[in-house]
Amino acid sequence: MKIIIVGASGTMGRHLTTAFEKEHEVITAASKGCDVQVDITSAESIENMYKQVGAFDALISTAGPTFVGPWKKLTDKEFRQGVEGKMMGQINLVLIGQHYINPKGSFTLITGALSHDPQKNFANASAANGAVEGFVRAAAIELEHGIRINAVSPTVIENSPQYFPFFPGDIPVTMQQLEYGFRKAVFGANTGQVIKP
Amino acid sequence: MKIIIVGASGTMGRHLTTAFEKEHEVITAASKGCDVQVDITSAESIENMYKQVGAFDALISTAGPTFVGPWKKLTDKEFRQGVEGKMMGQINLVLIGQHYINPKGSFTLITGALSHDPQKNFANASAANGAVEGFVRAAAIELEHGIRINAVSPTVIENSPQYFPFFPGDIPVTMQQLEYGFRKAVFGANTGQVIKP
Repeated sequence: MKIIIVGASGTMGRHLTTAFEKEHEVITAASKGCDVQVDITSAESIENMYKQVGAFDALISTAGPTFVGPWKKLTDKEFRQGVEGKMMGQINLVLIGQHYINPKGSFTLITGALSHDPQKNFANASAANGAVEGFVRAAAIELEHGIRINAVSPTVIENSPQYFPFFPGDIPVTMQQLEYGFRKAVFGANTGQVIKP
Repeated sequence: MKIIIVGASGTMGRHLTTAFEKEHEVITAASKGCDVQVDITSAESIENMYKQVGAFDALISTAGPTFVGPWKKLTDKEFRQGVEGKMMGQINLVLIGQHYINPKGSFTLITGALSHDPQKNFANASAANGAVEGFVRAAAIELEHGIRINAVSPTVIENSPQYFPFFPGDIPVTMQQLEYGFRKAVFGANTGQVIKP
């Protein structure tokens, strides 16, 4: 299977690359330092990525920039970080990528528990996650040729200890649990699902 | 109670204005034909509305422009209708309005069943609704001075028969049910809830 991993230079992306490249052809993509360069806040850049990679079987996104910070600083301007990044960035990966993906291929996006389980400082991510999850459910009934779409929605992950204080009482998701969430999405048959690893 | 109704020139807004003005001071707002003029896609216009109205007790929004149409026509450009309208328009009503609202006031936004129950042609609304619902849950734990925030989430409403064919099997929500959803949000004590009328 030919799998594109967007956000491959990040913590999750590196783990998934190592895990999946043993048995699959993995194309890594990120703003720098990967096989292909992509800026997901630009539809043009996304289109260029797909043109370079050509037909593929699965797109995994672990790319989700949002504004994290005090509510008092959250204005329209800061909110756009999550709108352009985690929300429209990932939505455009699908709207554009559907024209390049093979039949029966799959898209797997990243959201997070904040959509339903908010924490202070993360309202921008709550909105972006909610948008992506709503989109995933809607896209699942629109995509043709057996193409599937799902989201993986972890809470705080084990190797981001800098975020632990912001998620009191949340048991961190291990990298293996996260990997298995993506395995379910990519290699399973479900569509329109929000998978909690 | 001094209540601002944004989208007051629309079907829902007119019904709520008639229902609530019997016992409350209602300020109607819309792009035209109301007490106050507002373009919710402009943060500046929203700020001007609040400056004109002054302190208030409740903000009701029934304003939710999104792109409705075939999936094949849904690109980044069309998606922005829902992003700027139903999503950021309503989010900015809160981010800006929190500086004008009285203590113990409330914001009530409009979403819709499409966030969790998608229908063809409405992926843009599914995403916008999901974003607003995620935001409502997050804002509820951030807003101070006892200020509350909720969303009302109907399926298709009885006096929009032009949409019935797009919502097969959905029992239309009556205007009275919708009104009671808003009553629960405005006059009840809940916060962070998505109310299904």
